[in-house]
Amino acid sequence: MTVLKAYCQDKIQLIEGYLKKYLEAEGQYPPLLYEAMAYSLFAGGKRLRPILLMAAADAVGGRGDQFLPVASGMEMIHTYSLIHDDLPAMDNDDYRRGKLTNHKVYGDGIAILAGDGLLTAAFSVMLSQENVEPAVLCQVVREISVAAGPRGMVGGQVVDLASEGKMLDEETLKWMHAAKTGALFRASIRSGAILAGADSEQLQQLTEYAEQFGLAFQITDDILDVVGSQEKIGKSVGSDQRNDKATYVSLYALDGARSKADAAVANALKALEPFGAQADILRKILLYLTTREE
Amino acid sequence: MTVLKAYCQDKIQLIEGYLKKYLEAEGQYPPLLYEAMAYSLFAGGKRLRPILLMAAADAVGGRGDQFLPVASGMEMIHTYSLIHDDLPAMDNDDYRRGKLTNHKVYGDGIAILAGDGLLTAAFSVMLSQENVEPAVLCQVVREISVAAGPRGMVGGQVVDLASEGKMLDEETLKWMHAAKTGALFRASIRSGAILAGADSEQLQQLTEYAEQFGLAFQITDDILDVVGSQEKIGKSVGSDQRNDKATYVSLYALDGARSKADAAVANALKALEPFGAQADILRKILLYLTTREE
Repeated sequence: MTVLKAYCQDKIQLIEGYLKKYLEAEGQYPPLLYEAMAYSLFAGGKRLRPILLMAAADAVGGRGDQFLPVASGMEMIHTYSLIHDDLPAMDNDDYRRGKLTNHKVYGDGIAILAGDGLLTAAFSVMLSQENVEPAVLCQVVREISVAAGPRGMVGGQVVDLASEGKMLDEETLKWMHAAKTGALFRASIRSGAILAGADSEQLQQLTEYAEQFGLAFQITDDILDVVGSQEKIGKSVGSDQRNDKATYVSLYALDGARSKADAAVANALKALEPFGAQADILRKILLYLTTREE
Repeated sequence: MTVLKAYCQDKIQLIEGYLKKYLEAEGQYPPLLYEAMAYSLFAGGKRLRPILLMAAADAVGGRGDQFLPVASGMEMIHTYSLIHDDLPAMDNDDYRRGKLTNHKVYGDGIAILAGDGLLTAAFSVMLSQENVEPAVLCQVVREISVAAGPRGMVGGQVVDLASEGKMLDEETLKWMHAAKTGALFRASIRSGAILAGADSEQLQQLTEYAEQFGLAFQITDDILDVVGSQEKIGKSVGSDQRNDKATYVSLYALDGARSKADAAVANALKALEPFGAQADILRKILLYLTTREE
């Protein structure tokens, strides 16, 4: 098993264990709501955001596994966003990761509420984080809420929704992705670093890594949407194209998109240089995700 | 002008001023999202939750107007819940307070996102509260997120949605209202008290006030839904009955519901006794809302 795979398996076990215990301790009433939340929370996600948070803490010499509540809250926020994005009023997707989407199983009303519940509960989970100065915890959770909110993920989704059938210019497309996907990656990585006591220079370098990572990740996603196959990625291939959505591929064609992704990867690796071997996991995650074929 | 009216006008001006300044400072991009959020945020709400928060702070000898960020965050959470509750997948209401509902103006997708944006931004607004110990702020915001989440408001809405066409038993009906409406009232009042430094006895008394207040408020609402008139309350009268929803009136008939409301009011007033004149506003709010005819 590769070092990265072992690291991820270990962290995924911790995150999923934490989330399961949290849901159990909640009492799970009303059962329908908890069932709907659990359905999407345990639908086979990569747990990328919490893993990035923990790996960023490790990179500055901390111990990422001490920040499970904040890390798990990031996964709850990510999961809520998928549930709402899939709704008929948004992207109208029936399948995700090869499984029926939340609203196809529970109906639109419960799916909206399962998303609302996960988003709201993410904040109680994150604010239950111990062994961190309360002032630092307030700062971190506030930064996460900004990243997930109107100036971040929600704003990005609005631009995405409003741009169907239109070709966006490069600036708007970049803003959209930086907001919709990038902001939460950035907040994950910065949160891990801040929680673990990063100094301002380390934080600046990891922020640059995070932004280049987000860009590379999104371009790769757009490329895979075109060249992937339905079996491999578990959702309808070319769905972005069918909905006439602007993507890096529609803007720059495949070759242009590929060279932009390569440049972002190079910039991200450069930002990690000062951290030496402690940032190996962050390097491996980046390379794995941007060279994946599914 | 009555003392209560003057108090409320003063606080409403502060809250709305704060919310306007907050939205302006945000940059308001994407404009469609900020327009949709502002549409519901300034649709003529009573600002009851932030006023209760401030009045509870006053009741324990603090100054409620020092806690505008947390108070305004409560209003943002309340507003998001109205937007989502009105959606076709939920209560399917076209009008609220005499105005078209958010999704009737902006469409379901943007309405869902405007709600998501308000909910998420509420946490960044609340966590920007200054002049409070960070540990206390973490505690208060965490309690608010629990009250707004699956064990509180979201859970109550799930039970409400799942109960259409069914008669609920008293226990379930009480749980539903305590969760859907009561939890946010309770969190508002407790937050104001905690932020202003209430001791544990004061907090216990105000918690009892809050719970009885919530009960009295909801029963009054159910009664008004039956006896009110469309012009007066600005929404379709009897809509709860038409949807076959369980209410205190459907369970106990009008007279039974009225005597239950009276008992709750008496209990709430009793809980305020130790506070003397400092709790006058909390008394007046209770009596005003439970004797209103619209």
